[in-house]
Amino acid sequence: MKSSAESRRHIRQILDAAILAADPARAIRPHLRRLQKPKGRVLVIGAGKATAQMALAVEELIPNCTGLINVKYGHAAPLHKIEINECAHPVPDEAGLKGAQRIADIARSATKDDLVLCLISGGASALLPLPIPGLSLAQKQDITRQLLARGADIHEMNAVRRHLSQIKGGQLAKLAYPAKVVTLILSDVIGDDLNTIGSGPTAPDPSTIADAQAVLDKYKITVPVALTETPKPRDKVFRNVQNIVAGSNRLAIDAARKTARKLGYRTLVLSSLIEGETRDIARMHAAIAKEAKATGQPIKPPCCIISGGETTVTIQGKGLGGRNQEFALAAALEIAGTEGITIASAGTDGTDGPTDAAGAQADGATVERAQKLGLSAKVHLANNDSYHFFQPLKDLILTGPTGTNVMDLRLILIR
Amino acid sequence: MKSSAESRRHIRQILDAAILAADPARAIRPHLRRLQKPKGRVLVIGAGKATAQMALAVEELIPNCTGLINVKYGHAAPLHKIEINECAHPVPDEAGLKGAQRIADIARSATKDDLVLCLISGGASALLPLPIPGLSLAQKQDITRQLLARGADIHEMNAVRRHLSQIKGGQLAKLAYPAKVVTLILSDVIGDDLNTIGSGPTAPDPSTIADAQAVLDKYKITVPVALTETPKPRDKVFRNVQNIVAGSNRLAIDAARKTARKLGYRTLVLSSLIEGETRDIARMHAAIAKEAKATGQPIKPPCCIISGGETTVTIQGKGLGGRNQEFALAAALEIAGTEGITIASAGTDGTDGPTDAAGAQADGATVERAQKLGLSAKVHLANNDSYHFFQPLKDLILTGPTGTNVMDLRLILIR
Repeated sequence: MKSSAESRRHIRQILDAAILAADPARAIRPHLRRLQKPKGRVLVIGAGKATAQMALAVEELIPNCTGLINVKYGHAAPLHKIEINECAHPVPDEAGLKGAQRIADIARSATKDDLVLCLISGGASALLPLPIPGLSLAQKQDITRQLLARGADIHEMNAVRRHLSQIKGGQLAKLAYPAKVVTLILSDVIGDDLNTIGSGPTAPDPSTIADAQAVLDKYKITVPVALTETPKPRDKVFRNVQNIVAGSNRLAIDAARKTARKLGYRTLVLSSLIEGETRDIARMHAAIAKEAKATGQPIKPPCCIISGGETTVTIQGKGLGGRNQEFALAAALEIAGTEGITIASAGTDGTDGPTDAAGAQADGATVERAQKLGLSAKVHLANNDSYHFFQPLKDLILTGPTGTNVMDLRLILIR
Repeated sequence: MKSSAESRRHIRQILDAAILAADPARAIRPHLRRLQKPKGRVLVIGAGKATAQMALAVEELIPNCTGLINVKYGHAAPLHKIEINECAHPVPDEAGLKGAQRIADIARSATKDDLVLCLISGGASALLPLPIPGLSLAQKQDITRQLLARGADIHEMNAVRRHLSQIKGGQLAKLAYPAKVVTLILSDVIGDDLNTIGSGPTAPDPSTIADAQAVLDKYKITVPVALTETPKPRDKVFRNVQNIVAGSNRLAIDAARKTARKLGYRTLVLSSLIEGETRDIARMHAAIAKEAKATGQPIKPPCCIISGGETTVTIQGKGLGGRNQEFALAAALEIAGTEGITIASAGTDGTDGPTDAAGAQADGATVERAQKLGLSAKVHLANNDSYHFFQPLKDLILTGPTGTNVMDLRLILIR
């Protein structure tokens, strides 16, 4: 029979394997090896928090390359061929604007003999700010703020933003035409939608100028310039474009599953698309775990149930924590007193909320162990104070920054 | 390829099979057939909303029986040997008290040669009110009200209530000792915990008089009489007692699964233990459905994903609906535009909230069909107005009262 300590070790092994699989350089290498050498140049452009790591792999496998990427301040890497421009995230700044302009210029300079290699990872949208002529960065941000304040949803926001940009919504592909474009993507977005990741600089825009105008009319927002049209799916500019999701939550889940199998567990992947209020999502995970333990459904122990995606926390208290730690805390309450279930949740970037932890883990003894230390799981949950619950228990998952971000992973081991 | 209309027909077939399996008479018949005929009398006692239907099956298979059951007003059945006493639910009344007293007397009259057949279904706790001597029904209710108002949880409430009752927490078994006691249970409780269903009249009480007193002290509540101790697990009074969960959410799920298989679907039972805020639980169900459609995980289409239990709705609007209809509405938003997914949720009692519907169903076209009728899924969800969303769409599930209650069923068909 496996012990609780062994379950914890296994959780960590499975999680580490998943994070490693989503490592930016590791994820794109197989795709780089498959690239055909162009007659002309290899021009590397792109943006994102993990894009410097992706660029390292490019320099390693394609020595003859040049280009420029925009990354977040502090997210650089020692590159030799590809220039790095550090700029602000999540609120864009002038440095980002200048870099985005130069990236657009590089794309425009590409000929049909060149290969434009575009590297996109989380944060790319804010790190590639290039409003249409006549619209300042501040004006564009103000429009976004007004849309948010008036209750526009993410699809409405994106429809407007793509038509106020020179890059988003497939426009970077249009600039690069007729060069061959290969975009390698590390997705931090639920469902890996190409239009959503980095606002889809090389993906066809499903929304039209009329859609964007309808949103502006709906929320009574005026724009000082004419909107720009984005290229549509059948546009010739996409004929030579390949968008490849090289790293994603699903890739991490798949690695987790393989490692769990090697450790002797049956595996069940619930979904990579999980969103919703953290504590309720945790309750449902716990309900599935308890059913498995009691009846062998949906899967017979020893088993590992895996899910991905990213939940949200409606903050009601004043404590310290993150969605992953709160998930583990809510789950701890649900499985209190139950034997043989260990539940963990962690951000693949190694950071959960404003804490130094990636997440936390809990089992049937967690609530009682905490009580002995004078900690109430219920009180800490009500106060969104999961960090101060798990820290004294030494049940935080600490990985340090991992260099990747493919959302969260949740692991349930049942024996 | 199966059509959407066919999915809807299949949903209804699967649901009907599940409800039929949980029919009170049908569920207990196999257990009645297995009973050994006692030397003495068969005394039938019990309480619950569905208990008259259970008693019908008893009279059918055990002609020589007598007894008395407490049922909710309007929930009687044409019995000939077993007396029916109609009384109030959920707030007990004098009629309930008188019936409970007579039921206790019948149990006390049983000898070692008799078989006491105890029938318990949802509502039994309120329908078997018998406070300890010196405590009036009104006084006991007042204590319950104070506990609720001061934030006591269900376990704390039950610990106190069992020690203020002459019947709950195994005390009915004590009264019947040394007769043989067989309790047949139709469970409307998450996890089918014997102590919780009807407050466990014939099940050992895990809480002690000290636990109950600690709760009263914690919430600073005084009781005008001394608490009574309940029999504990190793007590001799349980030696001749058998508690059998004859009907439950799991039984209904199992019937649903068998029917889905016959219709050609792979099946996956997520859990019978699902609780939590309805709209978030719906989002997670939808996330699992979309993953199955996209990647074949956790199960490959054509498939039927099944879950049970009972969610809650935090009411924020002023509309009409119930947790099952709200589940279908929240799910509709999540699967809007997706092909091949049909999601349904229904209460096995045929009633969802204060409506005439058992629940509702939705697929990827639901939100758009509603738009054409001028109905906004988002607005209706925000207003908890699921009934008025699904009624014009003709997507309510209408079964009428089913005579059973084993909580809710959720069905997802993916093709």
